[in-house]
Parts: sequence; C-alpha cells; structure tokens
Amino acid sequence: MGRVAVVVVGISPPLRRPSRPLGRTKCGSSPEVGSPAVTTVPEYVAAHADEWLSGLLDWLRIPSQSGDPALAPQVRRSAEWLASALRAAGFPTVEVWETGGHPAVFAEWVSEDAGAPQVLVYGHHDVQPVDPLEAWTSAPYEPRVAGDKVFGRGAADDKGLVAFHLLGIRAHLAATGRTSPAVTLRVLVEGEEESGSPNFPALLRARRDRLGCDVVVVSDTGMWGRETPSVVTSMRGLISCQLDLVARDVDLHSGSYGGAVHNAVTELTKLLASLHDADRRVTVPGFYDGIVEPSPEERALIARLPFDEADWLSVAHSVEGVGEAGWSTLERVWARPTAEVNGVWGGYTGPGTKTIIPREAHAKLSFRLVAGQDPVHVKSVVEAWLGSAVPAALRWSVEWEGDGVRPCATPLDAPALAAVREAMGRAFGQEVLVTREGGSGPEADLQDILEAPVVFLGTALPDSGWHAPDENADVPMLLKGAEAAAYLWEILPGALKS
Amino acid sequence: MGRVAVVVVGISPPLRRPSRPLGRTKCGSSPEVGSPAVTTVPEYVAAHADEWLSGLLDWLRIPSQSGDPALAPQVRRSAEWLASALRAAGFPTVEVWETGGHPAVFAEWVSEDAGAPQVLVYGHHDVQPVDPLEAWTSAPYEPRVAGDKVFGRGAADDKGLVAFHLLGIRAHLAATGRTSPAVTLRVLVEGEEESGSPNFPALLRARRDRLGCDVVVVSDTGMWGRETPSVVTSMRGLISCQLDLVARDVDLHSGSYGGAVHNAVTELTKLLASLHDADRRVTVPGFYDGIVEPSPEERALIARLPFDEADWLSVAHSVEGVGEAGWSTLERVWARPTAEVNGVWGGYTGPGTKTIIPREAHAKLSFRLVAGQDPVHVKSVVEAWLGSAVPAALRWSVEWEGDGVRPCATPLDAPALAAVREAMGRAFGQEVLVTREGGSGPEADLQDILEAPVVFLGTALPDSGWHAPDENADVPMLLKGAEAAAYLWEILPGALKS
Repeated sequence: MGRVAVVVVGISPPLRRPSRPLGRTKCGSSPEVGSPAVTTVPEYVAAHADEWLSGLLDWLRIPSQSGDPALAPQVRRSAEWLASALRAAGFPTVEVWETGGHPAVFAEWVSEDAGAPQVLVYGHHDVQPVDPLEAWTSAPYEPRVAGDKVFGRGAADDKGLVAFHLLGIRAHLAATGRTSPAVTLRVLVEGEEESGSPNFPALLRARRDRLGCDVVVVSDTGMWGRETPSVVTSMRGLISCQLDLVARDVDLHSGSYGGAVHNAVTELTKLLASLHDADRRVTVPGFYDGIVEPSPEERALIARLPFDEADWLSVAHSVEGVGEAGWSTLERVWARPTAEVNGVWGGYTGPGTKTIIPREAHAKLSFRLVAGQDPVHVKSVVEAWLGSAVPAALRWSVEWEGDGVRPCATPLDAPALAAVREAMGRAFGQEVLVTREGGSGPEADLQDILEAPVVFLGTALPDSGWHAPDENADVPMLLKGAEAAAYLWEILPGALKS
Repeated sequence: MGRVAVVVVGISPPLRRPSRPLGRTKCGSSPEVGSPAVTTVPEYVAAHADEWLSGLLDWLRIPSQSGDPALAPQVRRSAEWLASALRAAGFPTVEVWETGGHPAVFAEWVSEDAGAPQVLVYGHHDVQPVDPLEAWTSAPYEPRVAGDKVFGRGAADDKGLVAFHLLGIRAHLAATGRTSPAVTLRVLVEGEEESGSPNFPALLRARRDRLGCDVVVVSDTGMWGRETPSVVTSMRGLISCQLDLVARDVDLHSGSYGGAVHNAVTELTKLLASLHDADRRVTVPGFYDGIVEPSPEERALIARLPFDEADWLSVAHSVEGVGEAGWSTLERVWARPTAEVNGVWGGYTGPGTKTIIPREAHAKLSFRLVAGQDPVHVKSVVEAWLGSAVPAALRWSVEWEGDGVRPCATPLDAPALAAVREAMGRAFGQEVLVTREGGSGPEADLQDILEAPVVFLGTALPDSGWHAPDENADVPMLLKGAEAAAYLWEILPGALKS
C-alpha cells in the first residue's frame, strides 16, 4: 500500500530559488531535477531523512522562547529559518507575518487540480523556557542525536512536528509524480503558542481571506505510544476565573465575634465543596447544557488503548484515581468537563496563629469543557449559580480570563478524521486508535474563526518531555509523521468528496 | 450602704517606708497617720482621686510594650513603678519577679484576721503596640485627661484597672478602720499578657507556694456600659492548629489530569465545609462532650442586657448575624463553642491563571471552647474526625499551638461571683448584670494551676479602644472599680464562709 511509481516531470518555479539562503537550511529537499525516478513515500522519506534531520538540528539551535523578551530576536530568527525551509521545500508563496508579538510564518502551495480541497497546516515555532536548566542532560539548544532520539528544546514541541511537513510534502510530490500537491496546502506556524497565543485570534481574523480552508490539520500532538499509533479526536476547552468573596471590610477577632457572623473562608469552602455532587458531577445548573458525549464507537476505541491505571497513577504522582461516576479514567480527562479549584486563599496564612474571622476569601477556578459546551454560556451559568448560592450577606465578584477557549472536537466519522486515520494507518502499517487531549491551545480559534473542522496529525511520544528538561523526539516517529502527511494529501481529495 | 465609720488606729510597719522612692509615685496614699477619721469608701476614693490619677498618668508615660524587644527596659521600668506604688499603698511585701521574659510584680498583704480568705488579684502592666501611630489624636505615651476620660496606651488595658486596686485597698482600710485587709491580699501583675503570656504558666508553677488562694480576682475586663454595670462570668477557651492536606508531591496540569485525580484544595474545602451542619453546629464527633450550658437564670440575665443587634452588627462591620440555631447573638459569642477557619491557602494564588490541580492545601483552624470542654480532648476528637473524614489517598497532618487555653467559667451561684456582684452593686448603686467574654488570656492558667475559682472585677467601657488608637479609660468608672474592690475585700470573708 502506498507504493506508487511516479516520474518527476517538471520543476515548479519556486523550486528554482536558492534552496538554502541562510546556508544551513536542509529541511526538505529539491526534487530530483531531471532524473525521473520511481519512488514510494517510505523510500523518499528514508532517502532524505539524514538531510532533513540535519536541517531540524539547525532549527533546534535557535532558542525561540516566546516567553522571554530578551529572546525575541531568536524567535524572529526561527521564523526566518522556517520561511527559508518552506521555500526550499518548494512552497511558491512564503511570508513572515507580523503580529502584535512574535512573527508567524505563512506558506501556500496552490494545487493545480481544479476543485482540490484546501488544507491549513498549523504548528508553532516558539518553544518553552528551559528551566530548570540543571536538570538537562545536555544543553537544550545544542541538540544531539542519541539512538532514535533527538534531544533539544523544541524537538517534540513543536519544531519536530512542523518539520515533518517539509519532508512530507516532498514525499507526496515524489511518490505521486505531481508538480503541485493534490490539495491546496497552506501552512501557518505561529510564534507565541507557548505564551498562550495572545495575538493569534487577531491574526486569524485579520488574515482570514488568506487562510480559507476545508480542514485544519494541527500538528502539535502526540500518540498513545510507539506501538500504538493514534490520532487525537478532540481537545477540551477552558474558561477560568478568579472568584472573590467578601463578608465585610475588616477581619474580626474570633474571640469577640466567633460563632455569630459570617466567616468568608468558611462560606467559600461551602461554595467550593458544593461544586460537585457525591458522584463528582458538577452541580452548577446548566453546566452540562448541549454537551456531546463520545459515541459508543469512540468509547470502545478508547477502551482498546493499552491503558495501565497503575502506570498512569505513577506518572500522576497519585495513589488513587477519582472522578465522575460512570466514566473511565481516560474518559474523565478527555471526554468529561470539569470544574477545578486551581488555588484558594483567605485570612491569615503566616506562621503560628491569628485568631481572626477572615473578611475575604478568594479562589481561582477553571472549567474544562467538551464538545457542545460554550465557554460564554458556562460563564453565565456559573454566575447564575454564584448569585443563588452565595449568602445574600456576602458580596461576590468573578473576573473571567477573557472568553475562554472553546472545545475542539472532530466526530469519529468526519471524513477528514477518517482520512487522517487512513494516512497514519498506511504509514504505520496498523490500525490507528483514537485518543483525546485534556487541554487545548489555539486549536479552537482555528476551528471557530476559520469555520473549518480541525484534525490532528502528530506523532510525538508520551515520553517526549514536553515543557520539561531533556525534551526529545523519536526520529522514526517524526519520519512516520512525514509519511502520514504525504499520504494524507493524497487521500484527502477523495475523502472530502465522498 | 457601704457607709462605715472607722477610726484608723495604727500604722503597719511597711507604711513607714518612704512612700515615693522614685519621686513620682502617687498612686495610693498613706493612711491618715495619727488623725483618726470617720470616712466611707466613696468619700475616701473621692478625696484621693486626683492624687491617684496623677500617679496613673506617670505610669502611662512608660511605654511598656512587651512585644517590642527595644522597649524591654521600659517594661522593667513599668514593673519598678508598680512595685513602688504597691509599697506606697502599704503592701508589706513587694517583689519584682523575673521570668523568662519581662518581669512580673508580686505583692502580699497578710490579713491579721485568723482564717481570713486568701485572694489573688491578677492584672498586667505591659501594653499593646501603638500602630497605627498616625491614628492617635494625641501621643499614646503622653497621657491626657479630657472630661471624664484619660487617653493613653494602657489607660484601660490594663494599667487603669490594676491601679484602681491601689486606691481600693486604701479605701477598704480607711472605711473599715482596719490596719490590714479583711482578706489576705496577694497581687500578681505580669508583663507579657499582650505577648500571649508565654512565661506565665511557668511562673505560676514555680511560685505556686507563694500564690495559694481561695479565689482569683482578675481585673482586666470591661462592663456592658456606663449605665449597665456588669460582671464577666466566663471566658471561652481556645485551641488552634494548622491543618496540612497533601494529595501528592507535585501540582498537576488540569488539562491532562483534571477530573480524574484528587484536588487537594477541593478536598480541603469539602472537609472545612463539613465542619458545621445546617444548624451551624460543629460536626466533629465528641466536640460537645461534657459541655456545661449556661443556666436559665444566666440566660435570663443576659437577655436583660440592652443589646441592640443593629448596633452590634455595625460595630462588627457586618450586615447579618448568623450562628448556631437556638442561641442569641450574645450567647453565640459568649456561651457557645465554635470551630473557625482563620485562614486557608493552596495552589496558585498569583495574578491571572495557572490551570493546575494543587498538590497541597492548608488551613488555620481555631476552636473556641466553653465550660466543660477540655482543649486536649478537643485535639483528640478533631484528629479522630480528620482520620475518618480525609480520603485515604491524601495525607494530612495537624500542628497544634501548644495545649491551648482552657475555658474559664464561674457558675452564677458561686459565692465569690455573688460577692463581686454585691460589691459592684454597692459601688454603682444598682443591680449588676452578667456578661461573658468570647476570648480569654491567661485566666484559665490561673484557674487551673492555682486550682482556684476566677472572678472578674473590671470596669472598662466598651469604647475604651483596647488594642486600638486613642485607648482611653473613663475615670469615674475606674474610681467605681476602686470602690467595688474596697467593698469586695469587706464582703468576701462572709461570702466565702457561707
């Protein structure tokens, strides 16, 4: 399967550009100009893997930490490196897009096929901070290859996954003999994902006319494991806030007043304790409005994942799993909405004792949301709940962190998702299971602003050390990602038509 | 009533000592040596009020803040001033007692009457800090008299109340014609009450042989009001702790784990919310063990106090009173035990959002205790409750602040309490009601270590500004205190015999 004999018959104009303007760009490669060849996706990928990896290592040397203002020039260097690499891979149009913060990179390769579907690939080229630096085995920006692994900040999150598309598009062309991809391919790689994508929604809105697409392919996720290729079907949304509860403007002496007036901390604990019922369902009326539960088919697929509760608890540093009755651990973190208290404070918190009745109490709350839930609706039902649950003698206020992140979900039978599972199935030679992600980044913005379904194509492994020391990517898995991308561009036109 | 013609017939040896060795001691006065006179307690007090007040002002000029190490020499000066004043008042034995911290002052005047009861008067000569200094109308250590009031740090808490005993003992002798008091009078005035009396229990134990008594008269309390003289019948005890709850050793990402593991803050809120039932009774099993409820007679007396709920709420900066069902506001703060959360913290408490599942949560708890409750027993029932209420998957620990303070209570029909009410009744010329205090100082130590009942003789008014700027005492009320003390020494021998 996937073995297609092709002859490269021409070179599209952009490929005539210098392929390595910065002298160190090796990702992707020019087609074998003038040397017609029969190749397959795996053969092409294998033949160009070393050259591609060398380019990736160059990219990983750029400390593109979006969170450190002092490294802003490095984020720009990273964008420029990627722009060059996309040009070298053949994209006729490559632009660095300015934002209110760090630049994003845009590329476009219009398919010559009439009616070809339009695809937007999303990723990010900024990386997490490296603290604690002393916990790294080798310097985070001096990438090294050890066995199958490449170690370095950004290897898995997200440069390695963005980079496999540089190889994937070339493999697609080489294996199909095409001079343009079977889909009109657009790529948008932002530079602020690790800082919460503060300018990304505005960028999407401003560039909406350039970003039109039938499907968004997000490459910023992982798989269940090396032996269990899988595709993410959804990400939970999020809305968070600070709740302030005020009983009065002064702390009172508990000897003089204890037992006869409201204690703001006690009232807060009663409120927060009442957030869940005995089955650990969220009690806020209307919280579950419109929720779309996972289909029996998806629940069955999730149940087939080789999940080891003890291992999972060990990774979670926990001795017991606990959550909403009637759902498995994976379903609880992937498919069920939550209300979490992220922090609480009030009254005296210093050493020793201060026998006061606290005047105020505060909590940080966050709500993870699943398909069918709207963060703006959740805001309103939480406020209605507070209005009815807080005693009238106390004042409360809630400050929301923006409008939150909408959940992002693809039904299992969505054609694009089926195409991704088929493409990965070809690459890995086995059935592709499904996972979900408990949290999300800007994927929901892509879905909502571009009004297109989002699918996930990512091949990072669970031990990638995302956001941690010794971040690494498994090179064979990245190459499988390149293969899957190559197949996906080939499969999508038919899948989206059917 | 109280008008007793006496003739001073002799001078006890200590009175021959120089009466003002520091040249500024005017509190108390020598008896009218060699000039037999007929006087009454009020007449004596009125005649010596100016001289006595002048002495008090001298004492108030000494900044005896026990909480400020830099002022330790001033606390010692205050002790020395008081020792001199006690000598001047005629006490044959006056000693400055060293402690692990600031010195206390001890005085003793043995009654010549065979079988006279032994009384220990307790007070303190240290004072609170003066912050915020800018809120004072005049300098805290430059006492001033304005109308009936004397303003200055310590005027009401507690120098003014200790000082009225200097005048009271002289009035007692003058009005009864005695050369020694009708009771063997011992006085112990400590110098660390405002710092929590850290060395006081040890002092009581070490000096127990010198402090034996049939009753302790504590002069460090107030009355309901100028028009409503009253006596305190009990003080609540206290035991406090810090509770630490640990779900694991790391915070978890709420996207990855939210909904499937224990949240330490949520578990803490459930625990704290369950501390009270719907009637706001404490739910800890065994918490109410042995409790002595106020008698119907005392409840009726309390109900006669001119209590204005709206005024009380205004002083409490609160819009609503709330507490244990079945008890009035005053009973809730005076006669009912409580469990209060003094502070709480856990998880992320900074600006913005951090979507974590907190690993730990903490609370400061305090329990106010009433007659019949033992703080050590309360410790054990709280720990037993934690052991059963905290989910097994979480670790908890509780750190108690020592062994707490036992409640201090005098039954309404106790002879010493009846004597205090009678003595105050003579001084004020009206019935004396009863109040309680919601908190307590070292009174329970006196009761427990000396194994003697404690009664309260204090005439501070509610607007004294205890622990606050513009602290003040009402001079006529202090003089009524002196009169009441004079009557009390006269009444007690008969009262304690009956």
